[in-house]
Amino acid sequence: MAIRGVLRIGEVAVRVLDLEAAVRHYGQHIGLHEVMREKDKAYFKAWDEHDHHSVVIREADSAGLDYFAYKVYDDATLTELEGKIKAHGLAVERIAAGVYPKSGRRIQFELPGGHLMQLYAEKAQIGNSMPTRNPGVLPDEGIIRGMGATRLDHVLLAGPNVTETTQFFIEVLNFDLGEELIDNDSGMQLGTFLCCSNKPHDIAFVLREERGKFHHMSFYLDSVQDVYHAGDIMGKHNISVDVGPTRHGITRGATIYFYDPSGNRNEVFSGGYIHYPDRPHLTWDTTQLGHAAFAIDNQPRPSFFNVVT
Amino acid sequence: MAIRGVLRIGEVAVRVLDLEAAVRHYGQHIGLHEVMREKDKAYFKAWDEHDHHSVVIREADSAGLDYFAYKVYDDATLTELEGKIKAHGLAVERIAAGVYPKSGRRIQFELPGGHLMQLYAEKAQIGNSMPTRNPGVLPDEGIIRGMGATRLDHVLLAGPNVTETTQFFIEVLNFDLGEELIDNDSGMQLGTFLCCSNKPHDIAFVLREERGKFHHMSFYLDSVQDVYHAGDIMGKHNISVDVGPTRHGITRGATIYFYDPSGNRNEVFSGGYIHYPDRPHLTWDTTQLGHAAFAIDNQPRPSFFNVVT
Amino acid sequence: MAIRGVLRIGEVAVRVLDLEAAVRHYGQHIGLHEVMREKDKAYFKAWDEHDHHSVVIREADSAGLDYFAYKVYDDATLTELEGKIKAHGLAVERIAAGVYPKSGRRIQFELPGGHLMQLYAEKAQIGNSMPTRNPGVLPDEGIIRGMGATRLDHVLLAGPNVTETTQFFIEVLNFDLGEELIDNDSGMQLGTFLCCSNKPHDIAFVLREERGKFHHMSFYLDSVQDVYHAGDIMGKHNISVDVGPTRHGITRGATIYFYDPSGNRNEVFSGGYIHYPDRPHLTWDTTQLGHAAFAIDNQPRPSFFNVVT
Amino acid sequence: MAIRGVLRIGEVAVRVLDLEAAVRHYGQHIGLHEVMREKDKAYFKAWDEHDHHSVVIREADSAGLDYFAYKVYDDATLTELEGKIKAHGLAVERIAAGVYPKSGRRIQFELPGGHLMQLYAEKAQIGNSMPTRNPGVLPDEGIIRGMGATRLDHVLLAGPNVTETTQFFIEVLNFDLGEELIDNDSGMQLGTFLCCSNKPHDIAFVLREERGKFHHMSFYLDSVQDVYHAGDIMGKHNISVDVGPTRHGITRGATIYFYDPSGNRNEVFSGGYIHYPDRPHLTWDTTQLGHAAFAIDNQPRPSFFNVVT
Repeated sequence: MAIRGVLRIGEVAVRVLDLEAAVRHYGQHIGLHEVMREKDKAYFKAWDEHDHHSVVIREADSAGLDYFAYKVYDDATLTELEGKIKAHGLAVERIAAGVYPKSGRRIQFELPGGHLMQLYAEKAQIGNSMPTRNPGVLPDEGIIRGMGATRLDHVLLAGPNVTETTQFFIEVLNFDLGEELIDNDSGMQLGTFLCCSNKPHDIAFVLREERGKFHHMSFYLDSVQDVYHAGDIMGKHNISVDVGPTRHGITRGATIYFYDPSGNRNEVFSGGYIHYPDRPHLTWDTTQLGHAAFAIDNQPRPSFFNVVT
Repeated sequence: MAIRGVLRIGEVAVRVLDLEAAVRHYGQHIGLHEVMREKDKAYFKAWDEHDHHSVVIREADSAGLDYFAYKVYDDATLTELEGKIKAHGLAVERIAAGVYPKSGRRIQFELPGGHLMQLYAEKAQIGNSMPTRNPGVLPDEGIIRGMGATRLDHVLLAGPNVTETTQFFIEVLNFDLGEELIDNDSGMQLGTFLCCSNKPHDIAFVLREERGKFHHMSFYLDSVQDVYHAGDIMGKHNISVDVGPTRHGITRGATIYFYDPSGNRNEVFSGGYIHYPDRPHLTWDTTQLGHAAFAIDNQPRPSFFNVVT
Repeated sequence: MAIRGVLRIGEVAVRVLDLEAAVRHYGQHIGLHEVMREKDKAYFKAWDEHDHHSVVIREADSAGLDYFAYKVYDDATLTELEGKIKAHGLAVERIAAGVYPKSGRRIQFELPGGHLMQLYAEKAQIGNSMPTRNPGVLPDEGIIRGMGATRLDHVLLAGPNVTETTQFFIEVLNFDLGEELIDNDSGMQLGTFLCCSNKPHDIAFVLREERGKFHHMSFYLDSVQDVYHAGDIMGKHNISVDVGPTRHGITRGATIYFYDPSGNRNEVFSGGYIHYPDRPHLTWDTTQLGHAAFAIDNQPRPSFFNVVT
Repeated sequence: MAIRGVLRIGEVAVRVLDLEAAVRHYGQHIGLHEVMREKDKAYFKAWDEHDHHSVVIREADSAGLDYFAYKVYDDATLTELEGKIKAHGLAVERIAAGVYPKSGRRIQFELPGGHLMQLYAEKAQIGNSMPTRNPGVLPDEGIIRGMGATRLDHVLLAGPNVTETTQFFIEVLNFDLGEELIDNDSGMQLGTFLCCSNKPHDIAFVLREERGKFHHMSFYLDSVQDVYHAGDIMGKHNISVDVGPTRHGITRGATIYFYDPSGNRNEVFSGGYIHYPDRPHLTWDTTQLGHAAFAIDNQPRPSFFNVVT
């Protein structure tokens, strides 16, 4: 049945302290395309996405996550999932088409970790600048710029009740558990990495006492060389780097963690294995915490668990 | 609902003229691991696959395809698909568990182009040599060897009734049409590229009068640099190269086409975009045949349509 | 004594049939920077070169080479080499400073194969756009564009008397013989590849009856991935590709041969081993002609020996 | 005159605390080939070097540098340099051929920073495993292993009198100053990076009060992807990583610093620009210390100046 149900992360909305600084960061440096501006908001898409936008930034007094949204296959899926979510016991709010610009109707609910999640089936499509008839392989000059982010890839969220949230994603949204990080003594899940596609993760959660915290949003790059190039852009523009370039043990992906000017963590990510649901899920424990997080120097960073917005 | 239904190509079985020569080719050169040998057959897996085998070669008087098989999510899916396939009008043969080694029950049917296709839900898993607890990111030395193929990726099959076969995959097996190549005058589909995952294709068909012909099986590599390394292996061992290294217009993937010692075409493939079912499918027409096939020099090769086994 | 004497190719001057088409090709597509225009000439530099220009194109009725020039370490070297060249028996013409724009004095002589070669020690420097104090590692956006050529790397010239020319470069100009291609029966040198640096070649000659023919000028790229990207640019703009992407056996470099709009052959080249003068030179013979030229498919191309301007 | 005079680093001899642990590190993990063993010493070469060995490790009670040696073009060069070094005021010790195994005669002198340096013109050549007639481009399987180091690239030495040493290399050994790091207030050279080839550095010095300290020896890799692979090897074998993967501002090279089991620092290095002696040297000052050292996160590491052996 191919990829059906929940397809992918379709939108992440974060607060920033200075809209213009953030527009330079997400636009010029990460290389997203600004597609729309409202009074206090800017909307962006990565060049190889087809939908109208995937990143929304809103000027506010504090950084952090407003909400995030996954796109589902069709309206029938949305209806079906609404029923399942309610049956699971979460309160579901209906949001009419058009309340969010360029978007069909949405449903919204709060995850056990305190994050606002939305699902929707429809968003205006504006394409990737290449025609659908004889498209070629390379867009016109300037479409790929800055770090050259091709897609919004995933988010990692921090909050309590990781296991409960994970079960919700598995049982209700039909995600697979790809990998997990557990406490070696108690077996408690400290982090879970969940897939709704062939990617090594589509969303992840890490345990944290505070509710609703934002760890990072991640952008996909095509190669390790592109990750290095992204790093060169960071160095040139004095973008604050958290960790990397390095490789994650979990997912096997190449990564750099860095911060937007308001302190929201971003990631560029490339590679990792191809996931299938019949693959045994992988478990890392705290005896290998460093290798699980950063598999080259095997050094856990306190910031990984401590710095969120 | 994540990846469900038909998951991926799980097995391709081809005839070779000389088993030992083929074992060197698929084992030492492509880098597959031989996991089992029967009298006239050798079974291989790519290193990062978890199931027992994905490639079967059988010594025979002529090269070509015996059958190919896709793995489905679970036995219920297999039952459901059996009903849909019969309802579509294809005769379905049931094959008991164990008839094919390490495999659960299968169903088999002949596609409109003359190819024997099988579906199954169960195969013995032997893993990728890395533990599931604290696996690390790199297998022990020697696991990745030769061209370093990570997975069997897809097959391309040649035969009549491409459109009919394509409709079967879309309507019955729930694949998406990713791209198509059409005759610019008649609009007839000359080639179709179908997805059941995030990959830019999971199976493809090209039009040809003869039934049941085999165009190529493809192995996934992680990067363009790995494609070049595979090419170096080909040059060192005088493996017959058909085309490449180059890039396909269709799928945007980097590629080399080459032949096994019996003349069956192989491919190493890397990259390409990330597919989602809500992406408009792409259409290439014969005015851009060269660019569609080989997007660097834009030269169509007669061998692409003429050489099959 | 480090790199002294003859440093590198500093200038290649070719004739083109249509100046504007050539400016688009060398400028926008290969990514050179046009630094000066005269009535019938355009001057270019690659972005990471420091001297004022390295490529000169002149509109004329036929394509081909006007002259090429190597830069030497200093004026004393130029004087010393003038004496050695004369002593070797070649006629040397003195060209005053300023006759060639931005250039100090030159000496000019005709090689045994019929090519006009010049040497000079001084050319105006305009830098690579990055400051010499705290330069950083990445120029401003737009400096690297098109194929991203970083430097003019070498030329390959076709003509008679290859061995005589080779001896001249070794004995008089103090180049090393890096590799040679010989006829397996006669031992005659069909091609020679000569080094004045750590690069696997700085100039090369292939045997051909006609005098003074131009085989190609080559531009350096940083990686195989960049070679593929250059290929994508070629495909997008329908640039005529001769061979590649592939790897040369000789030099081990990754390559694409392609043509400018007037039929002059260009190359993008990356990698190859690091040359030192105490390394034994490598000999390829005509039994391995294909592998020597194109080490992935081992197919010699008639165009390699037949198409020149 | 091509590359003449001092050619390259030919030998570095370091002390290690445990010979067998060091043999595993330099052999199996870095991928050097052990070519000879004496009672307390092991000799290694990188696979693409032609001389008999380039790295010597000796079991001792403390880590650190015994000596390092550069190879010069020929015996006449050695004689000439001996005279120049003496004239410069350094005491020169003659070491007869054969005292160092596989080596011709050497001269030895102490640099102003307290390091023992040797020069020699002759060492037995054993090649890179590939024939000199029709060599191909890829050695047999197993020759390239572990991190795949292709060559010993350079050393960085720590000690007093950096400027005096730098002048010695420029005036007597004819190196070029490629880059320097200076104190922004005093202008004092804190680090100098010197070239005797096209590489962005062939030796480097950093200022430190103690005499004769060893900062690192560096091994060349062909690409950023290979640097990442080296990092994966480090992570798998719990090799202690100092910094990286990252990029140096100075040289523009990709790098990982790591330690051998005795605490001697190693580096894998790739890329960087092509150096020529007519390029202006680059100056970094302490206002940009972080960017000069590690150009992605711009963070200076105390270990860079403090940890030596």
